[in-house]
Amino acid sequence: MSNLTRTELAGLSPKHFQWEVSDRIATVRLDRPDRKNPLTFESYAELRDTFRALVYATDVDVVIFASNGGNFSSGGDVHDIIGPLVGMDMKDLLAFTRMTGDLVKAMIGCGKPIIAAVDGVAVGAGAIIAMASDLRLATPEAKCAFLFTRVGLAGCDMGACAMLPRIIGQGRAAELLYTGRAMSAEEGKAWGFWNAIHPADQLEAEARKLAERIAAGPVFAHGITKTQINQEWNMGLEQAIEAEAQAQAICMQTRDFERAYRAFVAKEKPVFQGD
Amino acid sequence: MSNLTRTELAGLSPKHFQWEVSDRIATVRLDRPDRKNPLTFESYAELRDTFRALVYATDVDVVIFASNGGNFSSGGDVHDIIGPLVGMDMKDLLAFTRMTGDLVKAMIGCGKPIIAAVDGVAVGAGAIIAMASDLRLATPEAKCAFLFTRVGLAGCDMGACAMLPRIIGQGRAAELLYTGRAMSAEEGKAWGFWNAIHPADQLEAEARKLAERIAAGPVFAHGITKTQINQEWNMGLEQAIEAEAQAQAICMQTRDFERAYRAFVAKEKPVFQGD
Amino acid sequence: MSNLTRTELAGLSPKHFQWEVSDRIATVRLDRPDRKNPLTFESYAELRDTFRALVYATDVDVVIFASNGGNFSSGGDVHDIIGPLVGMDMKDLLAFTRMTGDLVKAMIGCGKPIIAAVDGVAVGAGAIIAMASDLRLATPEAKCAFLFTRVGLAGCDMGACAMLPRIIGQGRAAELLYTGRAMSAEEGKAWGFWNAIHPADQLEAEARKLAERIAAGPVFAHGITKTQINQEWNMGLEQAIEAEAQAQAICMQTRDFERAYRAFVAKEKPVFQGD
Repeated sequence: MSNLTRTELAGLSPKHFQWEVSDRIATVRLDRPDRKNPLTFESYAELRDTFRALVYATDVDVVIFASNGGNFSSGGDVHDIIGPLVGMDMKDLLAFTRMTGDLVKAMIGCGKPIIAAVDGVAVGAGAIIAMASDLRLATPEAKCAFLFTRVGLAGCDMGACAMLPRIIGQGRAAELLYTGRAMSAEEGKAWGFWNAIHPADQLEAEARKLAERIAAGPVFAHGITKTQINQEWNMGLEQAIEAEAQAQAICMQTRDFERAYRAFVAKEKPVFQGD
Repeated sequence: MSNLTRTELAGLSPKHFQWEVSDRIATVRLDRPDRKNPLTFESYAELRDTFRALVYATDVDVVIFASNGGNFSSGGDVHDIIGPLVGMDMKDLLAFTRMTGDLVKAMIGCGKPIIAAVDGVAVGAGAIIAMASDLRLATPEAKCAFLFTRVGLAGCDMGACAMLPRIIGQGRAAELLYTGRAMSAEEGKAWGFWNAIHPADQLEAEARKLAERIAAGPVFAHGITKTQINQEWNMGLEQAIEAEAQAQAICMQTRDFERAYRAFVAKEKPVFQGD
Repeated sequence: MSNLTRTELAGLSPKHFQWEVSDRIATVRLDRPDRKNPLTFESYAELRDTFRALVYATDVDVVIFASNGGNFSSGGDVHDIIGPLVGMDMKDLLAFTRMTGDLVKAMIGCGKPIIAAVDGVAVGAGAIIAMASDLRLATPEAKCAFLFTRVGLAGCDMGACAMLPRIIGQGRAAELLYTGRAMSAEEGKAWGFWNAIHPADQLEAEARKLAERIAAGPVFAHGITKTQINQEWNMGLEQAIEAEAQAQAICMQTRDFERAYRAFVAKEKPVFQGD
């Protein structure tokens, strides 16, 4: 691969959130736990750029979007974001809503599975970040609310009217989006929003375990899975099946596919290497 | 807003169903409880016209589609509808199925959240009206059946093959549509069809409470939520996210958005006014 | 109907799987129970051709895809399929993945409801065959795994990234596809993958009962239901509703529709005849 399309992100030092890479797993954490980790214009933009760079990262296979100080994120900061928005003209408003949408697009397009590990508050844009992740773990204390309606806005924020119904069903999504009420951890588990619930003191370890399990798999193929699960969103069934025939044929030419076969024949556990 | 696009619906006196507006909440109720409130050609047409008029209504923010005499609706009347259909030619049959489909289109396009409050029987077109509502409450006695197959028809009636799978999942929808069997209240709750179950004597009060809660929100923004959740049905993910960036930017120019911000800063509860 | 479009499948003697037709219900069963009924190149091709022929079959109304010797299917055989694939060039790989996709397309397009009756192992392509069926019954011992990732491949196999999310929700599907882990019978029931769980010794009888119930219905209309539920996959809501108006108008010209009406008036149970 040429240098043009290679990036190493282990050394990244973002200004507006925490970032750490170890064993090919990146952990992102919003900052300012005293205020439940709100998003700001700056952190939105820097997160967007980081997830965009992840496409080319050669040293990260899985991302954990973690909590900080007992909370995930309180969403767009009332003083830093909502206040300024109230006075903006349409050109600037659209620039803002497009930037927030671009974060979701970048998460979806980053090529690496993202695991949200949610403790405490995950509301507004915080709920969206959890929703836009591929897998979601939570604690019994997780309170997730798509509360846009409470600040006078519509439920259609950053893709929520499209994505939430496909995760938890159309009727439940409508209720959350019209009322802005919090979804309890128990509801979220029963509805398929959370993949699992873990006690707060085990959340990070469990997220790490899941990340390691996925990172130990065929990560090139994982990237194809991520591409297809989003790419096939609104394809016809026949078109999706043809798209998968092509995508899977690509994966059948990887060495990881051969490694799995050789390991099976040798009655060993395959060691995947992502190529 | 010009008079051309303003309608007041509080004074409506429909011939074929009950209609009442109070505190900006309209309550619709099918008639003839002795026969479990069947639909007729006339009530289909009048419902369609009423939901079409709702788009321009300036005095209604939320609709409750309520039960009557312990039942929601027994669907298309066997004598008044099925009998005549049996003798019709294709031109008239298609005119009929298009009219029934137009009712669902009108409900989806009316711009106001609709809450179905279902007691007892909700079958055939009655089940469809519940399905096409945005939120659904039921009693433990609710019996909802997409029973088209039992009258010799296909499950694809008024959008059921498209909408039911996205509410309860593809496999459960297939079972209900191929067998025509009733979905129990308990199943419907577990599957995400019913948002909540309430005892029969509390159903209307709970529907009213939910309607009031939603009507107290930013109703212009609710209308945008309703538009987007249906409009994004088969958009690609990227297109849906851009569509939401535009739709939410519109909402950020409403006074309700500013009211919410001012209320937050003043540590007060916002009073939304729908503009 | 001309002979060109009529086929009788009761006498079919496939080489690579078991096939039996009685009372208009076909039962398919993969072979080699000692190896948990793996798929081979030959059985893939023969299944594809059989489901394609089903469109024109005049003597089959419902299909049961049954288990054999306590298992459903272990998927593509490691020695007979995976081994050869490892050495293939892209042209042949794509020919293979398209053939497997063609089996799913043929199942979706065969015009008859398919009931999977799953005991024991249903993994890889075995899980896909269950997923591509219309209804799914299982035993408490059923172990269903979309384990492609474990053999170095992506989760996007034979339509899984498109279909699985609509059956069990996007988040649960992502977990199964990224980890390859088995879904327990209990999970599968709660998530809407299995329509019902039955003890192993009752599974076949229950599948048969369900098949008989569906076969006793208006089978021409069932075929339209199957067409529409797949055809409307990525239609807009308005387009789906118009498509259903047309499809249902067709069904209203069948004699089964009239039979149901006459039976109702005569207070009898309708006897449908599929025309």
